[in-house]
Amino acid sequence: MAADSGQATQPEAIAAVIATLEPVLGTRVTTNGAVCEQHGHDESWHHPAAPDAVCFPETTDEVAAIVQACSRHRVPVLAYGVGTSIEGQIIAERGGICVDMSRMNAIRAVRAQDMDATVEAGVTRNRLNAHLRDTGLFFSVDPGADASLGGMASTRASGTNTVRYGTMADNVRSLTAVMPDGSIVRTGARAKKSAAGYDLTHLLIGAEGTLGIITELVVRLHGLPEAVSAATVVFEDVADAVDAVIASIQYGLPMARIELLDGLSMHAVNRHSGLAHPEKPTLFLEFHGTRAGVAEQATIMGELCAEFGGSDFAWATREEDRSALWAARHSAAYAAKQLRPGKEFHATDICVPISRLAESIEAARADVVELGLTAPLFGHVGDGNFHLVVVVDRHDAAEIDALETLNERLIARALAAEGTCTGEHGIGLGKRAYMRAEHGDAGLAVMRAIKAALDPHGIMNPGKLI
Amino acid sequence: MAADSGQATQPEAIAAVIATLEPVLGTRVTTNGAVCEQHGHDESWHHPAAPDAVCFPETTDEVAAIVQACSRHRVPVLAYGVGTSIEGQIIAERGGICVDMSRMNAIRAVRAQDMDATVEAGVTRNRLNAHLRDTGLFFSVDPGADASLGGMASTRASGTNTVRYGTMADNVRSLTAVMPDGSIVRTGARAKKSAAGYDLTHLLIGAEGTLGIITELVVRLHGLPEAVSAATVVFEDVADAVDAVIASIQYGLPMARIELLDGLSMHAVNRHSGLAHPEKPTLFLEFHGTRAGVAEQATIMGELCAEFGGSDFAWATREEDRSALWAARHSAAYAAKQLRPGKEFHATDICVPISRLAESIEAARADVVELGLTAPLFGHVGDGNFHLVVVVDRHDAAEIDALETLNERLIARALAAEGTCTGEHGIGLGKRAYMRAEHGDAGLAVMRAIKAALDPHGIMNPGKLI
Repeated sequence: MAADSGQATQPEAIAAVIATLEPVLGTRVTTNGAVCEQHGHDESWHHPAAPDAVCFPETTDEVAAIVQACSRHRVPVLAYGVGTSIEGQIIAERGGICVDMSRMNAIRAVRAQDMDATVEAGVTRNRLNAHLRDTGLFFSVDPGADASLGGMASTRASGTNTVRYGTMADNVRSLTAVMPDGSIVRTGARAKKSAAGYDLTHLLIGAEGTLGIITELVVRLHGLPEAVSAATVVFEDVADAVDAVIASIQYGLPMARIELLDGLSMHAVNRHSGLAHPEKPTLFLEFHGTRAGVAEQATIMGELCAEFGGSDFAWATREEDRSALWAARHSAAYAAKQLRPGKEFHATDICVPISRLAESIEAARADVVELGLTAPLFGHVGDGNFHLVVVVDRHDAAEIDALETLNERLIARALAAEGTCTGEHGIGLGKRAYMRAEHGDAGLAVMRAIKAALDPHGIMNPGKLI
Repeated sequence: MAADSGQATQPEAIAAVIATLEPVLGTRVTTNGAVCEQHGHDESWHHPAAPDAVCFPETTDEVAAIVQACSRHRVPVLAYGVGTSIEGQIIAERGGICVDMSRMNAIRAVRAQDMDATVEAGVTRNRLNAHLRDTGLFFSVDPGADASLGGMASTRASGTNTVRYGTMADNVRSLTAVMPDGSIVRTGARAKKSAAGYDLTHLLIGAEGTLGIITELVVRLHGLPEAVSAATVVFEDVADAVDAVIASIQYGLPMARIELLDGLSMHAVNRHSGLAHPEKPTLFLEFHGTRAGVAEQATIMGELCAEFGGSDFAWATREEDRSALWAARHSAAYAAKQLRPGKEFHATDICVPISRLAESIEAARADVVELGLTAPLFGHVGDGNFHLVVVVDRHDAAEIDALETLNERLIARALAAEGTCTGEHGIGLGKRAYMRAEHGDAGLAVMRAIKAALDPHGIMNPGKLI
């Protein structure tokens, strides 16, 4: 049965792929049940589904051999980074072959002069940054989880300092990828810009493995700032905090991070980490620059926040204090879950133009109250992106209904505000239903034509995104 | 005869398209010889070729009607901005219908809070910036010519301040485009980021009208800096100037512009504009920021340049002095042409990683000497991108041979250095021969598959790019 039929894959086809790959990969292809199970779920609440086999390639050529075998036998093939996706991107709903990229973890080159690095797709962002220690450079994209760079590119990840340094789309210069026919493509160039032909780099970024498997990346690096300063500032009301954010962006302050946590999020963080922050809407800020520049930014931001009733500025200039501050912020999703122990969480992910952020947040909070949900709010407000971490009992049909109603309302309003159903989590399984509303029939038809042209047998991560 | 046959289009097919369009466009479709001739050449030295007819649509729906008619009758269709492309992108080698976008020149919205604007594709960058006067915002991309924004997106243009503010690829949030079947697509969102599906925005940017016609854009705006300061600084040697540039980038100085002109370029500029700059390698610099930030940047840059023998710092802080400074820089290509009156020029356009820039420039200059060409050098060295403006007698076969040899050597070295054959001019007619060398068989096959899927009849700007 073909991979694009929506049915499970025939055992004979899987067996044929494995028979082809065993001489190439040896014990690095396995049908071990526990290994397959472990590769069948991500951090989302989508129902897990295990692949039929897992491969552990060590080179791009081995990935090409895997994809070629899958192409020949019309077997689904899915790449797996570290499993931190949250819209089910790596769930093997139709079975097939999982390509675990963890052994492709070489940092091939760091070029300080060009401020870039060539890494294999299995390298995680923390490992790259540990490797960069002492070079004066860092890799900026920070989605919270210690995700693999291939996975981050595939889902067009972003995170807390995107407001200053951009998303994965802004921080990848070139990719090596195995296409659905097993051919190996190197996209873009290592130069800072190019006007040579179609932009295959950006086509693969955010494609969630449905057009090819990324095996290597050239990523941009940034210079470590001379000075860094972080702070929290407390507001009486979420709307005041959002207005302060908008004012700072309007002012042109080049903030490195500007994150909002609402009162319930702060309560959850305090409980989770044994802290004693005021349990009110709080902005987490970070400034990067020269010593004079950071001082100037901090002064201006202080004045702007004060205009909107911001108080209780708490500064963290020592590295350990800043780390503690951001650890608290990064714990917010897990902390939220502990508000209802034993329950699961689903994070919404809309992103809107800044001018529509205040009304979007206000309407979202009203919905949460109306629907009786437990859903702390936090997010990358400098980008117009926020999450509600809805903690639900998945066995309670009324709660699931309420969650679905919330998500539908949020997304309908985001699209009406010229925003998007997903700022950074991607489509995966969870947002497919909104693709038509967001892109229209014509846009979706273009995407489907590209998918059909590059992956005519529909073997690459079938059923995801499109 | 089909548009993709490489032959001229049958008169009957053209007549059928015109008969379809006349009821829609009235006198805004014309076969007037002078109008067609005027639309058959850009600023390149490629041989002009006129379209069979020119249309002047006023709405996206009218563009869709034009493309639908061309699709039905298999007639080539080419978009025309203001004709400032320099690789023959708008030359109608196979005849067909030219879509002149000049009447689609509405600035639909400027949203200061979101720092973006929605404009029709025929709006030029200078007109947008004039419109933005008094808003505190500006549109950054500056390729020199007062090009249309649709054309700039289609060729992935950049220019003098890309080192700070990015290329067109970095400054477009969303596009409206008419696809080859006449459908209308709106790509992306107006939100600052999105992870929803394939990135059609970046696919159309740089596609040179071969996948669709851009009719409307949402462009990013930037806040006018509180303070601006510009300067020229003179070096004894091009290598020293390049080393100073590299040092400044390594330092992390956020310069807004950093341009190099060699001694011959300075000689040409002096002659052209009646100036008296030292006729030595010169960096043109601009700093944007707060008053304190600009002063700090200028001081640091002064020290860095001095380390490499930079002298004769000439500061321009008043707006009229800065305008004069940049007018001189922007005149460089035309000034170069006057080194040999009556002759034509061809600008090379390689871009390499910064670490390879010094050797690339050195080798290029050695080639120019060896080949006996007149070719001042200037460029956007902060991006690793430079041009040789080769002034040649196109009727002198030996000179043309020498030019071709130069271009081939430059590009071969750029590709060996992980660079690109074109930093900002695009492929058009002039660089098609280098697409395979740059992207490989596999990369080119992917591009061709996309082209065939979206434009099965090959009607969109046939013969360009791919």
